[in-house]
Amino acid sequence: LGINWLLFLTFLAGCAGVAWTGAAFKPGEWYKSLAKPLWTPGNWVFPVVWFVLYILMSYAAMRVAQLPESGQALALFTVQTAFAALWTPMFFGKRRLFGGLIVVVILWLAVAATTLEFMRLDQTAGLLMVPYVIWATLAALLNLQVWLMNMTGPRGEK
Amino acid sequence: LGINWLLFLTFLAGCAGVAWTGAAFKPGEWYKSLAKPLWTPGNWVFPVVWFVLYILMSYAAMRVAQLPESGQALALFTVQTAFAALWTPMFFGKRRLFGGLIVVVILWLAVAATTLEFMRLDQTAGLLMVPYVIWATLAALLNLQVWLMNMTGPRGEK
Repeated sequence: LGINWLLFLTFLAGCAGVAWTGAAFKPGEWYKSLAKPLWTPGNWVFPVVWFVLYILMSYAAMRVAQLPESGQALALFTVQTAFAALWTPMFFGKRRLFGGLIVVVILWLAVAATTLEFMRLDQTAGLLMVPYVIWATLAALLNLQVWLMNMTGPRGEK
Repeated sequence: LGINWLLFLTFLAGCAGVAWTGAAFKPGEWYKSLAKPLWTPGNWVFPVVWFVLYILMSYAAMRVAQLPESGQALALFTVQTAFAALWTPMFFGKRRLFGGLIVVVILWLAVAATTLEFMRLDQTAGLLMVPYVIWATLAALLNLQVWLMNMTGPRGEK
């Protein structure tokens, strides 16, 4: 499977839309004031990791999109795109710790299902999605723990 | 092309992620206070129209996803998903009238390109996207006019 630049850049354009939510809704004083687990990554880690993941997932989707029978795999890729775009406004915009948790759990399911479908069609594409599965797992665990640690606080949600 | 329920419901799940941004970022007092053109639809129109569009676009994508060579069309569908999810948080969340305009112009381009690709692969799918093109055009014009009418106001952006 060769490089199809038009496909790659189209998927990357979709990722740019998702990235834009991250640029618009940044962690600020509110996030700083939340209780967080010790293993919470520094703020700078998030855009760096996402940048790498956008490249990997766009390349993986580019490969899959060149294969026959890839409709279901790309439909799942659309679902993870929508929920990845939703998480940041929900968490940093609306400051809903539990709402963010629901979204990131759905995101995790969508990423896992996309990865399995990619793997079935093209092993390389599937493997390129594995870092995203790991990151989505960490993000879900972090959101869960932040929700639990701030449930009773003055800024937390009940 | 028959109905493939799994494909249809997967695309609809992506739309649900987009719809969630609309549910989370509602027009409130701020939007009410903006100067708006006379032809601005009532608030109730937006969720009704979007609901219909989600059904139509999911059905169209379901048809296209069953065809060979549909990779580029579905990649474009991913782009419109991302920018549709971005618009509401940008406009109603960040209250950026000009930022929203940029997003809705990119959204319009993505919807138009998706429709052309769908049309090329399956005329029915293309026609099912036409209401979305019309709606995106209206949304872009409304955002443009709201931006122009509120540039110099106390709550407007320069």
